[in-house]
Amino acid sequence: MNKERIPEAVIRRLPKYFRYLKEMEERGAVRVSSSKMSRDLGFNASQIRRDLNCFGGFGQQGYGYSVPKLRSEIARIMGLNREHTVAVIGAGNIGQALVSYDRFAREGFKVAAIFDVAPGRIGQEAGGQRIRPLSELEEFVKKTPVEIGVICTPQSAAQDTADLLVRLGFRGIWNFAPIDVQVPAGVSLENVHLNDSLYVLAYRLRAESSEI
Amino acid sequence: MNKERIPEAVIRRLPKYFRYLKEMEERGAVRVSSSKMSRDLGFNASQIRRDLNCFGGFGQQGYGYSVPKLRSEIARIMGLNREHTVAVIGAGNIGQALVSYDRFAREGFKVAAIFDVAPGRIGQEAGGQRIRPLSELEEFVKKTPVEIGVICTPQSAAQDTADLLVRLGFRGIWNFAPIDVQVPAGVSLENVHLNDSLYVLAYRLRAESSEI
Repeated sequence: MNKERIPEAVIRRLPKYFRYLKEMEERGAVRVSSSKMSRDLGFNASQIRRDLNCFGGFGQQGYGYSVPKLRSEIARIMGLNREHTVAVIGAGNIGQALVSYDRFAREGFKVAAIFDVAPGRIGQEAGGQRIRPLSELEEFVKKTPVEIGVICTPQSAAQDTADLLVRLGFRGIWNFAPIDVQVPAGVSLENVHLNDSLYVLAYRLRAESSEI
Repeated sequence: MNKERIPEAVIRRLPKYFRYLKEMEERGAVRVSSSKMSRDLGFNASQIRRDLNCFGGFGQQGYGYSVPKLRSEIARIMGLNREHTVAVIGAGNIGQALVSYDRFAREGFKVAAIFDVAPGRIGQEAGGQRIRPLSELEEFVKKTPVEIGVICTPQSAAQDTADLLVRLGFRGIWNFAPIDVQVPAGVSLENVHLNDSLYVLAYRLRAESSEI
């Protein structure tokens, strides 16, 4: 399958399908129709069918989708059927929270190590890991292949950190610093802007109170 | 202005405009054209003009937009020109990280208090705040009006927490539990799914390595 042909919007919806199906499966559901998915997810039923068709169309007319099959197929498509190793750069609040967040590990994202530059943090513990000096990152990845680098540095250090990760051969970057870092083609990047959804919430509060 | 007429997609782009203009302003920029914004943000220039026109059109042909004026206008539209008070429910890793994250306070989101149900956490400190028992929330909001409740509980407690917040008159809910909670009309809700962007990253890593 040509990856170019999967629209970005479909890719963005995949996690929602995955979460939904996982919940359904945990509750013991075996089959689900696109119309039930539509009601539960708030997407149009024909859009759901089109989305899932992008990946080969596993539904049967009048029968619906097999929940475990569709869940595992989407997991496979998203690369969630194997383990990913992660290094966290920056052991501030967000970095420490991510290292301690057992949900990531349960979903196959294993934190191999956490790094910082602050002498006061190096050697301390976060989520059961000793915080290492960033100067050891290069040596570390020579011995332990790490795929994804998580940037939890202050904004001012984020781009330098991204450049370092790229130079060391990281293939994916998950950026929590409040700035869109730049990476070359071939490196996958997700910028997480926690504030953005807070801004949207503030907007809605304002719109609801009709002050606009 | 009729809030119904602002498309959801425009609302979702507003935080990006805001962050961009704030950075421009910090660097001393006075004016910006839609074509420069287009290059920097990766949006289509005519889309940018249309988006900004939704809010009254502050640009002048051949002159561009005034950076500080547009930044402050978007801040006003998003309700960021005033302080918001926030209560965090759940003092686990994510809750503690959010309370300690000074960026929110700098942008006008003040954490009034943090609550938990675990005896081992109550009375401890997080981000300079004493963790209070959740049973005190009702009394607390009678004395201190709080607008936004942040759900940082385990998944199993998230919907009950949302119901409680709604009953106590919270107008906005920012949910970090990995489940889409339901709230009645009139309450604004943003579900944050940290894992979703990690899934998208995993997908891209897989697509880049052409294993699909």
